[in-house]
Amino acid sequence: MNKIAVLGTGNVGDAIGSKLIELGHSVMIGSRTSNHEKMQAFVAKHHGKANAGTFEDAASFGEIIFNCTAGVASLDALKMAGESNLDGKIIIDLANPLDFSKGMPPSLSIANTNSLGEEIQKAFPKAKVVKALNTMWCGLMINPSLIHGGDHHTFVCGNDTEAKLTVNEILQSFGWIAENIIDLGDITKARGTEMYLPLWLSIYGATNNGAFNMKIVK
Amino acid sequence: MNKIAVLGTGNVGDAIGSKLIELGHSVMIGSRTSNHEKMQAFVAKHHGKANAGTFEDAASFGEIIFNCTAGVASLDALKMAGESNLDGKIIIDLANPLDFSKGMPPSLSIANTNSLGEEIQKAFPKAKVVKALNTMWCGLMINPSLIHGGDHHTFVCGNDTEAKLTVNEILQSFGWIAENIIDLGDITKARGTEMYLPLWLSIYGATNNGAFNMKIVK
Repeated sequence: MNKIAVLGTGNVGDAIGSKLIELGHSVMIGSRTSNHEKMQAFVAKHHGKANAGTFEDAASFGEIIFNCTAGVASLDALKMAGESNLDGKIIIDLANPLDFSKGMPPSLSIANTNSLGEEIQKAFPKAKVVKALNTMWCGLMINPSLIHGGDHHTFVCGNDTEAKLTVNEILQSFGWIAENIIDLGDITKARGTEMYLPLWLSIYGATNNGAFNMKIVK
Repeated sequence: MNKIAVLGTGNVGDAIGSKLIELGHSVMIGSRTSNHEKMQAFVAKHHGKANAGTFEDAASFGEIIFNCTAGVASLDALKMAGESNLDGKIIIDLANPLDFSKGMPPSLSIANTNSLGEEIQKAFPKAKVVKALNTMWCGLMINPSLIHGGDHHTFVCGNDTEAKLTVNEILQSFGWIAENIIDLGDITKARGTEMYLPLWLSIYGATNNGAFNMKIVK
């Protein structure tokens, strides 16, 4: 069991944090301010099993860091967490740089020749950034067996092989089938998983159902 | 049976043109020049059942136009085909704007807040552009049953509902299961299917197998 920081108090942070607590990890959820309403609700519903604090508190506490903040705010959040609290640690980056400022559908604030995953790795070169789980609704991230018997695919990418193996184990503890976790390669492969979002949003829009994922068939 | 123009003599044009001939359509394959080597090979292997000419010849001949040219060259190719030869016709756009000029992996020359499908529709406002089949290897486009019993997904998008129904029928004649052809909406949805390419390329790179596709499971 690990000490894990979950940065972000939205649906993704809530889902990931709750699952990690259920699995027996020590979790601190982090937000911009230590008295964030959603964070207090998270702590209350976990009856003393959850810790909460600022991004900095959480990153200092965690041996592993989940980035569940909104993608366009992730770099700021991680800067607030503090480089020295991230150095040498695994950052599991679940965020997508969706820019809603120009209306719907959102565009990506970073894309094509760059990605949020790469920007985070560049900003914190001593951290081990692993992009993961950013291609689906958060309910599936932590409960893949909700659909199709859990037989569908997810991706990891990052520059550190050992860090990817650790993330692979965490994903398996969430219910992911080992052979359905595809290692795409280094962190530049985050471009692909982030740029899938517009298609994800279009499929969601066409089917009115977010509880879907892709199964790679061959 | 229709008179169909296939613009482009690469693997995609060859696959589509051959399948259309097999299905009994009258096909003219078009290229930049009327004496293109690959086009002559295409005509030769179809023993007189294939016609060939310039982009302009082909577009003039076809009631339906398949754009199988390289994405970064598609707008030029369609301009050479001639606006008057495209007006009122369905352009089935299979191309992806992959830019290999900066090395591998390619980036997209148009992305995020725009797409090749949209650019073609803007350039030829009287044509009915339907983006289709651009999310897979060409061998699967015309033979989906090659993998997983044909049970996987493909997408169409475009502004003209009737044109999308015609394309849907053509896809079914290629072997696509009707309920696996997802109508994503208008031509702006081409952003999603084109931006999927970097992920497609990453999966291909990680698995060394291009004969895969996504099945949407829920």
